[in-house]
Amino acid sequence: MRFKITTKQRLKIIPLGGLSEIGKNMMVMEYEDDIIIIDVGLMFPEEEMLGIDLVIPDISYLLEKQEKIRGIIITHGHEDHIGALPYLLPQLNAPIYSTRLTQGLISVKLKERKALTEAKLKIIPPGGGITLGKFKVEFFPVCHSIPDAVGLIIHTPLGTIVHSGDFKLDYTPVSGKPTDLSRLAQLGAQGVLLLLSDSTYAELPGYTPSERVVGEALDHIMAEAPGRVIVTTFSSLVSRIQQVIDAAAKYQRRVFIVGRSMSDTVRMALELGYLNAPTGILARLDELKGMPRNKVVFITTGSQGEPTSALVRMANRDHRQVHILRGDTVVISATPIPGNESLVNRTIDNLFKQGAQVLYGKVAQVHVHGHGSQEELKLLLNLVKPKFFMPIHGEYRHLSMHAKLAQSIGIPKENTFVLEDGDVLELNPQTAKLTGKIASGNVYVDGLSVGDVGSVILRDRKMLSRDGIVVVIITVNKQTGKLVGRPDIVSRGFVDTRESKDMLDESRDLIARTLDRSGVRPAEWSFIYSKVRDTLNRFYYDQTKRRPMVLPFMVKV
Amino acid sequence: MRFKITTKQRLKIIPLGGLSEIGKNMMVMEYEDDIIIIDVGLMFPEEEMLGIDLVIPDISYLLEKQEKIRGIIITHGHEDHIGALPYLLPQLNAPIYSTRLTQGLISVKLKERKALTEAKLKIIPPGGGITLGKFKVEFFPVCHSIPDAVGLIIHTPLGTIVHSGDFKLDYTPVSGKPTDLSRLAQLGAQGVLLLLSDSTYAELPGYTPSERVVGEALDHIMAEAPGRVIVTTFSSLVSRIQQVIDAAAKYQRRVFIVGRSMSDTVRMALELGYLNAPTGILARLDELKGMPRNKVVFITTGSQGEPTSALVRMANRDHRQVHILRGDTVVISATPIPGNESLVNRTIDNLFKQGAQVLYGKVAQVHVHGHGSQEELKLLLNLVKPKFFMPIHGEYRHLSMHAKLAQSIGIPKENTFVLEDGDVLELNPQTAKLTGKIASGNVYVDGLSVGDVGSVILRDRKMLSRDGIVVVIITVNKQTGKLVGRPDIVSRGFVDTRESKDMLDESRDLIARTLDRSGVRPAEWSFIYSKVRDTLNRFYYDQTKRRPMVLPFMVKV
Repeated sequence: MRFKITTKQRLKIIPLGGLSEIGKNMMVMEYEDDIIIIDVGLMFPEEEMLGIDLVIPDISYLLEKQEKIRGIIITHGHEDHIGALPYLLPQLNAPIYSTRLTQGLISVKLKERKALTEAKLKIIPPGGGITLGKFKVEFFPVCHSIPDAVGLIIHTPLGTIVHSGDFKLDYTPVSGKPTDLSRLAQLGAQGVLLLLSDSTYAELPGYTPSERVVGEALDHIMAEAPGRVIVTTFSSLVSRIQQVIDAAAKYQRRVFIVGRSMSDTVRMALELGYLNAPTGILARLDELKGMPRNKVVFITTGSQGEPTSALVRMANRDHRQVHILRGDTVVISATPIPGNESLVNRTIDNLFKQGAQVLYGKVAQVHVHGHGSQEELKLLLNLVKPKFFMPIHGEYRHLSMHAKLAQSIGIPKENTFVLEDGDVLELNPQTAKLTGKIASGNVYVDGLSVGDVGSVILRDRKMLSRDGIVVVIITVNKQTGKLVGRPDIVSRGFVDTRESKDMLDESRDLIARTLDRSGVRPAEWSFIYSKVRDTLNRFYYDQTKRRPMVLPFMVKV
Repeated sequence: MRFKITTKQRLKIIPLGGLSEIGKNMMVMEYEDDIIIIDVGLMFPEEEMLGIDLVIPDISYLLEKQEKIRGIIITHGHEDHIGALPYLLPQLNAPIYSTRLTQGLISVKLKERKALTEAKLKIIPPGGGITLGKFKVEFFPVCHSIPDAVGLIIHTPLGTIVHSGDFKLDYTPVSGKPTDLSRLAQLGAQGVLLLLSDSTYAELPGYTPSERVVGEALDHIMAEAPGRVIVTTFSSLVSRIQQVIDAAAKYQRRVFIVGRSMSDTVRMALELGYLNAPTGILARLDELKGMPRNKVVFITTGSQGEPTSALVRMANRDHRQVHILRGDTVVISATPIPGNESLVNRTIDNLFKQGAQVLYGKVAQVHVHGHGSQEELKLLLNLVKPKFFMPIHGEYRHLSMHAKLAQSIGIPKENTFVLEDGDVLELNPQTAKLTGKIASGNVYVDGLSVGDVGSVILRDRKMLSRDGIVVVIITVNKQTGKLVGRPDIVSRGFVDTRESKDMLDESRDLIARTLDRSGVRPAEWSFIYSKVRDTLNRFYYDQTKRRPMVLPFMVKV
């Protein structure tokens, strides 16, 4: 019997983020009066977002439907999945469901922003589940570059949805369980309405190598490095930290944890049992003195070349406690996040200049990433056999590529949906289609404020960054409208004010002449303003081929 | 007989650039009263060089020795080898020696900056030579990603120096001759004092693939693309343009050249005979209408995602003549220069969004680069068998890696020299050592001026770019020292002035209170200035956690 859907019985899938590479993952699923939210991530600003600290999703759509929100589900503890919680949780005001390590990381985040006390955090083990309104959500373990990562099986009245989370297939993971393929195969046999799957590495042919490859590389390094070994990685990459500790232990090296976020994560992961360190292997920096160099390992932050990180300070001889010594071996066990390449390269150069040997992705297999390559993505598609497919987690080219992969294994083109943030996909058991677009986009966090920085401020910052500013102070007599004295000029970031003194003086005279001719009536200020600005724009461009921001100001006396 | 060197008989090798990846290659060789200069390149600004157009080498060392300069030798026509000539030639005032295509490209550059008439340009064919004072320079052909590239054999009274230029070994190059290995082997047998060799790809194991690989890929694409094919590459990559024309001709497609610099280069290369196009294959854009889509190829600029390039305008639906059509195939036949990755990625995303199929380095072999990988570098070292080795052309990590490669094939560590710009390497037939450092570094070109932008202006631009500016205008009575009215505030790029009106008003009152308490005597302006600035810095940071530039200005009436 064909089962009939009334207009109310529609399932909506709306990405509010997660359709860019490192990007503020967040998705809304809505059915009748129930909404669930999957992930609440942040994004780091792109180059042109000058002065912005963080970027979070626009949730205005959810604010109108606050009473429908049944819960927030977090797939794993990376910034791009949990980072916006401190900013958005107060407005969303819903319980958060996650695995235990993820919860630990969320707590740290919320505490930093003093948003922990209000939060309702519930632990669901991998394999466990929870019912949220009409949604029955089951957590299945996946391999990713952090332990306790899960994908989701979401049973809805209209069919089953599989959400892969971030995943790869690693049959020999260091920690955590391998991705639960048999559960997925079983679901595939029963029928899956929609698969949402990680596209981050959809460009890459073949399979992503196992974490084990890195373990072997680290083992060689610890055995053969003539001096100290300094390993840097993401602090969330708990399994990598475990591999370093294991390799260090094997060669009787002691391990020093350096950098605040690395120390915080290691402490938390040890407490929760996600990290195991043999007794006595972890050392404090004050024990370093006199220790033989080939018995020392540092694990440190700085894998992205962050200017204030421990590794970058070491590379710049700017760290209070640890200096690079000739003969040190530095291992960069991470890939640069797009945009960070030049910071990382500069750090490597500086380490070489200090006499260190540096091993990094291009020259040694000291990192594998946490996302499935093309063959893994096809395997998942094959097992789950979804009726509809929507690639998630990636930039548009990754999503497009992933959609093509799906088509190559037989999913009809009209059943694959490449969305952009805010697009609404509506499903029933027979059909799926894009039915609209809701408000969505980037909200900027800059200092204390969330959302006040808009396009005008960014445009001004961009203009200021290129050729600086010239402030023109024009004093006029408010009775006569006559100039009082000569207009003043202050500039910053424009020209060398000593070298260009004559040119700047000439521009003062030019303004004086311009205003003397026409006279200044305070009532006409907006006209005068434009006139002064245009005159100086032209003059400065002719003289310098630069376009500083010209900011006239009138003082009436 | 051991031949004796007096203190005067020293050969100095001084890099003024060329020790960074894409960086303003320039080298000085000095012997007694003769100086030769090899390459005069520019570098594009790095991210933190806000508002800078170009970066050129500091040549103050040469300006003191102008009368010794015998000539400028250019190894090939890329920007990082010729780009600074328009700025520096007037000061260097020496003849320029290069091959014919290189000369053509130099002429174009000099003409743009109206520096052509003064220039003395001399053509030396690959295989030819020139005597410049005590230096006898021989050009030997090398393969690189531009035709007519050469390396240099420099005979000096103290021994022979080999300078590789930028090179790779390609036994089946598309245009130009393969690298002349037998000449190098012959020299190696006779004895070479010093080898200077390209390090750009010293990180990469194995061999760089032949250009032929790309030819085959292009052939497949032209055969199979259902619609139009749009190829973007560097305009200097003349051999790639040839490959596109050849593949288009094979499948009866006509070729449209789009973009100014691409058109200029194609015209020049056709005239000089470096590019061959079958009669009738090149078409004008007004012939496009009505042509079957599978008979059309575009060759266009934009391979680096440059915002004003033809491809980027097409991707943004902003090009006047060419729009992307569903079913177009776009081929990005270039690697992003470090720093351009996100611009290129965004362009690819936009092309996908318009329904194009996009082929680029990560997903298809549509580009090979122009530099030798590790095995090629080792082969060169093996053939030339230099006594001393100095890696050039690369960032510090590449140079370090290249030095290690040299050591791995038996060159003693103490005979390899990794220099930084400005380091002076002195040689005689027996010994080589670093003997000092001369002034060197980056000179910024910003608009019309060369060198006036220094660290203060850049620091100001950086500060302005982050949190904007607040200008405070304080009007005081010059007799009484009393404030006249309330201090005024103008801000740009700091906060939303409507949303933050109260906060800004409060800061005006704060200044008024601060100054009323202490009174203002114009003579104490520098004290007042600091006080106002510090007060506001603190206030704004407390209120917003932002640090705008605070610029107080006093008007005396």
